[in-house]
Amino acid sequence: MLEEALGSSRRAVVGFGDDVSAVRFHRGKLAVLKTDMLVGSTDVPPGMDMWHAARKAVVANVSDLAAKGVQPYAGLVALGLPARLTRRDVSQIADGLSAGAREYGFPLVGGDTNESKDLVISIALFGLIDEERIMLRSGAKIGDIVATTGEFGSAGAGLHALLDRKILPNKLPKALAEAVYHPNADLTLGVRLAGSGAVTASIDSSDGLAWSLHELSKMSGIGIRVSDLPISKAAMRFAVRNGYDARDLALYGGEEYRLIVTVKRGLLRKARDVARGRLKEIGVVTKRSDGVRLFSGGREIKIRMKGWEHFRH
Amino acid sequence: MLEEALGSSRRAVVGFGDDVSAVRFHRGKLAVLKTDMLVGSTDVPPGMDMWHAARKAVVANVSDLAAKGVQPYAGLVALGLPARLTRRDVSQIADGLSAGAREYGFPLVGGDTNESKDLVISIALFGLIDEERIMLRSGAKIGDIVATTGEFGSAGAGLHALLDRKILPNKLPKALAEAVYHPNADLTLGVRLAGSGAVTASIDSSDGLAWSLHELSKMSGIGIRVSDLPISKAAMRFAVRNGYDARDLALYGGEEYRLIVTVKRGLLRKARDVARGRLKEIGVVTKRSDGVRLFSGGREIKIRMKGWEHFRH
Repeated sequence: MLEEALGSSRRAVVGFGDDVSAVRFHRGKLAVLKTDMLVGSTDVPPGMDMWHAARKAVVANVSDLAAKGVQPYAGLVALGLPARLTRRDVSQIADGLSAGAREYGFPLVGGDTNESKDLVISIALFGLIDEERIMLRSGAKIGDIVATTGEFGSAGAGLHALLDRKILPNKLPKALAEAVYHPNADLTLGVRLAGSGAVTASIDSSDGLAWSLHELSKMSGIGIRVSDLPISKAAMRFAVRNGYDARDLALYGGEEYRLIVTVKRGLLRKARDVARGRLKEIGVVTKRSDGVRLFSGGREIKIRMKGWEHFRH
Repeated sequence: MLEEALGSSRRAVVGFGDDVSAVRFHRGKLAVLKTDMLVGSTDVPPGMDMWHAARKAVVANVSDLAAKGVQPYAGLVALGLPARLTRRDVSQIADGLSAGAREYGFPLVGGDTNESKDLVISIALFGLIDEERIMLRSGAKIGDIVATTGEFGSAGAGLHALLDRKILPNKLPKALAEAVYHPNADLTLGVRLAGSGAVTASIDSSDGLAWSLHELSKMSGIGIRVSDLPISKAAMRFAVRNGYDARDLALYGGEEYRLIVTVKRGLLRKARDVARGRLKEIGVVTKRSDGVRLFSGGREIKIRMKGWEHFRH
């Protein structure tokens, strides 16, 4: 919607449709800009306190820069605070923002505080990168290896546990609680991978693994064949015990901040080295007409373009 | 609140407490960052359509850069949209954003759309300026001339007409309607004034003339003596006809996007020249202990540190 009305600008080297936007401002240098808004009624799961909500808002923004290989240089935060929040809530928000920014090594240098009916934490990040170094959603080539920086399904399992099964937050298995309440962005990994020169395309997985694979497919004009679905142990355990499909949790869950990258086959070793054991090869890039498919138990299944649906409560 | 928790960073040349934030990133060059959030329940007066609300969100952000002398280079927009908005409302928002950005000569290069209970339009702007050229709230010196880029009171009068007197939006006098629904930022003027080297301190007046004078006083450690209060004709007419104090409308109204600057006495002519008739001298900078005072009809009156209170409806 925004994309159509605002059109594209020659100044924007990267515009709508990628994880971040970027403008050229100095020979070979890009200013990278990102904004992502956390809304209380749709982005804060039951049992999450204000400290963790604020930190999550930081993580969601950082993860998009991580996927492009960009270290945040400075950030801004605009808050919409419902009148019902206590002084303690507000101070938790400030502390959670501060903790998140410190974790990822950048200062929050300005902001704007407002009253609003919904809790809104809108963060904007600014970073700098050499144009030749930035990793985009486009760029994957047939034959490249598809890899992720971790496993999937824990956050989805945690959210299903809280929302469908009404499990109390403090009864959640530790790995699921961690995934839901205290997610982490792969910033160091993203910056290192960008530096390796081995990555041809990259995206963050916050809208879900399936959605992100489809985005890579669309923006790079390629197909993807997944042969080794990276499902977390915690998600598998939850699926078995509660009658869920673990593959669906990994593919169509969301709110997980891993990176999905495509790597030049000849530089796979280099990418593995810089990732220090964190890179999981999950498949290969194929031709566009193949679509996005999962090869499992001798059968090929189409991966749907379905993302994580925000929850309401 | 945010300011205390987030503290200050050595990277921030300009941090909380000024109209924008700025970080040094290249010898002598500042990256200027600003975020300002428009909230439906507090920032959108009765009778304002979505197109004008979105444009106003742009103007509010641009005005802060204007006060620092910074041309926006690119912007981002994060939206929180209530479910009740129609397709037409949403398209008006996109068009209003687009029109505002075009007016001030920069592209909106990215964004984030969310559902929320309150309408939220959170804009972040990015600009570049030479460190020696930026105009800050600090820097005013005793003896400097205090000047504004326009008159005050029309927006305040318009809001009182709508909110207290329940005048229908289409019955509002034209000058008041224009001030409320279609405000403008003094971007070209701000950039020219920064280039003149004549300005020692500058602030935008969106929180009201009185509030802004007090901010200059605080940040520059000076007093201000206003001898010629710049009240708009439309505000005077409204005050006389409806029993308001025109001075109060000019001093304590708000939502007006003029610049208030202090100018070196010896360079006043230069500042006047670049401003091409738009600079109104309203007073002089005095010593801190004098406070912020209005000299009127042979008497001195203390100007209160009172800003525009957001409206609710």
